Amino acid sequence: MLRQQLERVRENAPLIHNITNYVTVNDCANILLACGGSPIMADYVGEVEEITAICAGLNINMGTLNPDTISAMVAAGKKSNEVGHPVVLDPVGVGASLVRTKAANILLNEIRFTTIRGNSSEIKTLAYGQGTTKGVDADLADLVTEENIDDTIVFAKKLSERTGAVIAISGAIDIVSDANRAYVIRNGHAMMGRVTGTGCMLSALTTAYLAANKSTPLEATAAAVCAMGICGELAFKRLGTLDGNSTYRNYLIDAMYHLDGEAFEKGAKYEQR
Amino acid sequence: MLRQQLERVRENAPLIHNITNYVTVNDCANILLACGGSPIMADYVGEVEEITAICAGLNINMGTLNPDTISAMVAAGKKSNEVGHPVVLDPVGVGASLVRTKAANILLNEIRFTTIRGNSSEIKTLAYGQGTTKGVDADLADLVTEENIDDTIVFAKKLSERTGAVIAISGAIDIVSDANRAYVIRNGHAMMGRVTGTGCMLSALTTAYLAANKSTPLEATAAAVCAMGICGELAFKRLGTLDGNSTYRNYLIDAMYHLDGEAFEKGAKYEQR
Amino acid sequence: MLRQQLERVRENAPLIHNITNYVTVNDCANILLACGGSPIMADYVGEVEEITAICAGLNINMGTLNPDTISAMVAAGKKSNEVGHPVVLDPVGVGASLVRTKAANILLNEIRFTTIRGNSSEIKTLAYGQGTTKGVDADLADLVTEENIDDTIVFAKKLSERTGAVIAISGAIDIVSDANRAYVIRNGHAMMGRVTGTGCMLSALTTAYLAANKSTPLEATAAAVCAMGICGELAFKRLGTLDGNSTYRNYLIDAMYHLDGEAFEKGAKYEQR
Repeated sequence: MLRQQLERVRENAPLIHNITNYVTVNDCANILLACGGSPIMADYVGEVEEITAICAGLNINMGTLNPDTISAMVAAGKKSNEVGHPVVLDPVGVGASLVRTKAANILLNEIRFTTIRGNSSEIKTLAYGQGTTKGVDADLADLVTEENIDDTIVFAKKLSERTGAVIAISGAIDIVSDANRAYVIRNGHAMMGRVTGTGCMLSALTTAYLAANKSTPLEATAAAVCAMGICGELAFKRLGTLDGNSTYRNYLIDAMYHLDGEAFEKGAKYEQR
Repeated sequence: MLRQQLERVRENAPLIHNITNYVTVNDCANILLACGGSPIMADYVGEVEEITAICAGLNINMGTLNPDTISAMVAAGKKSNEVGHPVVLDPVGVGASLVRTKAANILLNEIRFTTIRGNSSEIKTLAYGQGTTKGVDADLADLVTEENIDDTIVFAKKLSERTGAVIAISGAIDIVSDANRAYVIRNGHAMMGRVTGTGCMLSALTTAYLAANKSTPLEATAAAVCAMGICGELAFKRLGTLDGNSTYRNYLIDAMYHLDGEAFEKGAKYEQR
Repeated sequence: MLRQQLERVRENAPLIHNITNYVTVNDCANILLACGGSPIMADYVGEVEEITAICAGLNINMGTLNPDTISAMVAAGKKSNEVGHPVVLDPVGVGASLVRTKAANILLNEIRFTTIRGNSSEIKTLAYGQGTTKGVDADLADLVTEENIDDTIVFAKKLSERTGAVIAISGAIDIVSDANRAYVIRNGHAMMGRVTGTGCMLSALTTAYLAANKSTPLEATAAAVCAMGICGELAFKRLGTLDGNSTYRNYLIDAMYHLDGEAFEKGAKYEQR
């Protein structure tokens, strides 16, 4: 399963349109190139429809949004829906400000998302209309643990039913769910939280996996989440005693560049529930 | 002294709001994560007050400013003052254009800064209302040397008295001063000038140190300056014969990730005057 | 020839004003520092004329343009023309949207460029007013091959005659041409296409080479293209089995940092036609 998802990305080399924040945009571009896709960034409302039309998927990230980029997100998202491209929403920091919460509501109303990916606080905020988001990291109280996995899946399935999107909740334990089936994924490493942009990179990667595997959005999203987690593990294994979070970021992208079907199948730790 | 400053950053993990330039923003985020803090970037005026309120400190960097971000800086700065958070000003390139000089004056009038950090040309421009800034690097004529240290301290103390802020002047010799006491710091390496963003990263780091050590702003600023300089030295020692400025940047952030209280106390080269 | 071009960059340390995209801007800054130059980024129309006036060259990159940055490009470009600074155009993605094609036309009408550098699809779009650009990479049908080199040179000479600019077409085979003479350059490595920003970095580098070698724009552009290609080769040689595109990016900038006249002369693979 996983192997095919990855190989289709390398074969199709999907061009992904990103409307994303200026903090981690370079890492998003390089992870897309690493996985076998290709990035284009464009956020001016006057051109995003044309740009998105020549791409294979759209990644919308709310990291450093403003009214101009919100308009661009809506225009690009509608166009992507029209031409049948997968669209990913990364609701960075939703709940941390009214502006972000309102923007997320506008996006959810105007665009059909293929996958919505965020940390547990962000996804809870989307579900309940308000939340406990503190900045861009998940609140401790919201984290997915062995104890609340089943409750989280029930919650994710309901949100998927309401939005029509695959829901991906990132954390030490990842949940990827549509309205009927859920994957529980245990790949990754704690050090991923010490680098900026691992979430943003995962959303960009997910868009490439969706674009290359259009008929299986649940599996494509789960595959992207596994791939990112495995690369986080491989990168950690490479670290020398003096290497810190900056080298870790490089090794993570490097690992995605070299990830092959065999290592992918072997390293993936997931179960269906 | 230094050890405690560093350990409080790691214990408190302060969330720092950055309104900063798009050139070095990723490095600022990663140095904050490396030191034990956490970053959030948001520059839309409609949300910065809410964002800053959930943070522990605010870092204002003028690197790629425009009227929209200036408004956001003022709004966020005032809110930070209101809720008692430390606020840092990095007046990048002040004096290189009228827009920057005017923006700096607006910021100084509207916001009480905890620390103002820049190179010698930038700080002189702030003090005298105009300067000899050439781009983003200090003019040779403005550099702090062994010969003009005492004069520079007199100047820094006066500027601190006028603004109420700790003044940090970066260069081969760093001066960190409030109205009464000054630290002369001799950490760092010339190669730091061959990487973009070492100044910006230091300002972000200083904000984290201030947020975790609110009662001692002079010492917190001096500690951040020492920490950055020591990491610049450690990074240089790691370089192999083929490593250049890009690897140096990674090693610098890596060094901050691993810096502990003992290495910090041992490596710091400072005197009080 | 090449050696002198490089040494003049290191001696003059030209300050380069960049109005560029937020995706690769950090890499552009670091490659400028690596080659011996110095970067400043500023894109607010209210200050770009002053900023450009204190610099030695201007690099205009259309990567993530919008109406505000287009105005800034025009203002800075005209000022640079007025004070006699070299100006480079990198028409990223021209042809991918009407906005980009129109913007390129405005820039070509308002500004005299010293060098225009892009991939083959972008340059063809500029020449014919419309093109086959797919995103930010060249279309396969447009690539320069051994078979169409002479035709490409005829085309490049005509475009140079019309615009007054040196034309640099990047790809596996690079063409650098003015109205009379052309260089065919065979440096570089395919892996450069797997990192974001190698084209953007080359445009920034070209501006530094032009600024330090004002009397020989054709040779300065050819030298920059050779330098980038050689660094791409050197970076590839350094790669270990686990290193991917992120480490490759670092090694590429590192190689530029260490490139000396001897290695440059020895490594350059070019012919005149």
